[in-house]
Amino acid sequence: MALIRSAFQDELDGVSRTLVELSKTVAELINDSTKALLGADLQLAEEVISSDDAVDEKQHELDARIIDIIARQQPVASDLRALITALRMSADLERMGDMAHHIAKITRLRYPNCAVPAELTKTFIEIGRVAEAIALKTGAVIETRNTDMAIEVEKDDDAMDQLHRDLISTLLSKESSYGVETAIDLTLVGRYYERYADHAVSVARRVYFLVTGEYFD
Amino acid sequence: MALIRSAFQDELDGVSRTLVELSKTVAELINDSTKALLGADLQLAEEVISSDDAVDEKQHELDARIIDIIARQQPVASDLRALITALRMSADLERMGDMAHHIAKITRLRYPNCAVPAELTKTFIEIGRVAEAIALKTGAVIETRNTDMAIEVEKDDDAMDQLHRDLISTLLSKESSYGVETAIDLTLVGRYYERYADHAVSVARRVYFLVTGEYFD
Repeated sequence: MALIRSAFQDELDGVSRTLVELSKTVAELINDSTKALLGADLQLAEEVISSDDAVDEKQHELDARIIDIIARQQPVASDLRALITALRMSADLERMGDMAHHIAKITRLRYPNCAVPAELTKTFIEIGRVAEAIALKTGAVIETRNTDMAIEVEKDDDAMDQLHRDLISTLLSKESSYGVETAIDLTLVGRYYERYADHAVSVARRVYFLVTGEYFD
Repeated sequence: MALIRSAFQDELDGVSRTLVELSKTVAELINDSTKALLGADLQLAEEVISSDDAVDEKQHELDARIIDIIARQQPVASDLRALITALRMSADLERMGDMAHHIAKITRLRYPNCAVPAELTKTFIEIGRVAEAIALKTGAVIETRNTDMAIEVEKDDDAMDQLHRDLISTLLSKESSYGVETAIDLTLVGRYYERYADHAVSVARRVYFLVTGEYFD
C-alpha cells in the first residue's frame, strides 16, 4: 500500500512539474509577443502564433493524464480536489498562451507598421515585463506552494491593472491624437495583457486555496 | 447494484439540469445587458451586475456537487469524463455571465449617456439577439445531446464573428466620426459579446465530443 501511495505521489509531482513547465512556456511566449509587438517583428510574431499549438497540445496531454490518474487511483477527497484544481490551472495557463497568441496576431495584422506608437513603447515594455514576471512567479507558487508568494501575485496584478488604466487614460487624453485604429488595437492588446495576468492570479489563488483551505481577497 | 447505478444516473441528470438552468440564466443576463446598454438603463445594468454573483454561487455549488459525486461514486472512465466535462461547461457558463456583467459595467460607466451611438443601435440589437439565441440553443444541446444542434451553435457563432468584424469595420470607416472613447467602449463591448458566444460554442463542442467521441471542425 505504501508503495502504491508513493507511486501516486510521484504522479501528482509529475502533474505539478508539467504545470510549472507550462508556466515557463507561457512566460516566454508573452515575452516574445511583447518583443514582436514593439519591434514589429513578423517572424517572432509567427513563432508565437505557431508555438501556441504546442501549449494546447501539452495541456491536452496533461489533462488526459490527470483524468487517467483519477480513474485509476480513485483518490481520496483531498487528492481529488488537488487533481481537479490542476485541471483548472492547466486551463488558465493555456489561456495565457492564447493571450500571447492574440497579441502576436495584432502585430502580424499591422506589419510592416508597428501597432504601438513610439511614445507608448515604454508603457508596453513595462506591461510586458509585469506580465512575464507574474507568469514566472506563478510557476514558483505552483512549485513551492508558498502562500506569501501567491498573495504577491495578486499585488503584481494590481500593478498590471494600474498600467492598463493608465493606458486607457492616455488613449483618451485630449493631448493624444491617436486615431481610432490605434485605439482599437491598443484596447484589445491592453485587454489581452490584463487577462493574461488575471489567469495567473487565478492559478495563484487556486494554490493558496489548496494549501490553506481558504480564499484570500 | 442496479439501484445504486440508478441513483448515480439521477445525480448525473441533476448535474445536467443545473447546467441547463445556468444556460437559461446567462441567456436572460445577456438579454438584459443588451437592453440596458441600448436604453442606457442604469437600474437594469445594476441588476445584471448583481445577478452575476448568483451565477457564480450556483456554479460553485454545482462544482462542489460534481466533485462530491466523483469522490463518492468512483465512476468508471466514461462517467468520469462526463463529470469532468460538466465542470468545464459550468466554467464556460459562468464566464458567459461575466461577459454580461462586463457589458453592464460599461453601461453604468457611461450613464446617463448611452455607450452606443444611435446609428449603431440596430447592430447591437442583432448582436444581442444572436448572443441570447446561442445561449438558449446551447442549453437545448446540453438537455437533448443533439449533435446536429451542437454544430448549429458553431454556425450561429460564425454569424456573431461576422457581426463583430462588421462592427470594427464601421468604427474604422472614414465616414464614421466616432471619437476614441466610443471606439474603446465598443471594441470592448464587441469583444465581450464575441467571447460570450465562444464560450457557448465551447459548451456545444464538449457535448458533441461526449456523444460522439470526436471533435467537429
